[in-house]
Amino acid sequence: MEIREFQQLMHDLYFENDKKRGRLGNFIWLVSEIGELARVLRDGNEEKIKEEVADVFAWLASLANVLNIDLEEVVKKKYPGKCPRCKNNPCKCNFRL
Amino acid sequence: MEIREFQQLMHDLYFENDKKRGRLGNFIWLVSEIGELARVLRDGNEEKIKEEVADVFAWLASLANVLNIDLEEVVKKKYPGKCPRCKNNPCKCNFRL
Repeated sequence: MEIREFQQLMHDLYFENDKKRGRLGNFIWLVSEIGELARVLRDGNEEKIKEEVADVFAWLASLANVLNIDLEEVVKKKYPGKCPRCKNNPCKCNFRL
Repeated sequence: MEIREFQQLMHDLYFENDKKRGRLGNFIWLVSEIGELARVLRDGNEEKIKEEVADVFAWLASLANVLNIDLEEVVKKKYPGKCPRCKNNPCKCNFRL
């Protein structure tokens, strides 16, 4: 499935309410899902972890919709097949350490 | 770009370090990126918002790699083209209100 296709699905399903909620309202929902993911990571139920990872992704896509951001475009720009800092693949600069 | 292709790119670039960091180490990085996104949403610089949205997605993909979760599979399971609760598209149940 394309990143863009998933973002469009979230738009089709939820944009009407997402738009009313606004950017900060959507951000708070994303943070709330991050909290739920924390809880299931603590408890260690693998099925629930999968579901919460899906929800974080869904809310990130909804937030991107409200911000009028194309998720695919922004990740391709930031990560064009190589590390943004050392330009290698795999990364050799420990950019994220 | 496929969701799976982006997750694989993050694996190619960063998995060696992501693996060492472990699931909680990666989760903390994801939360840290959520914090950066909060800051740029507050300040309102649209270019920086795009970059932080990309970073949140990148860290979610890295966390999924460490958890051995296929992002595409879990979102297709949770959101199979319709609302998980009311089964409509668009959602009619205000599931996320």
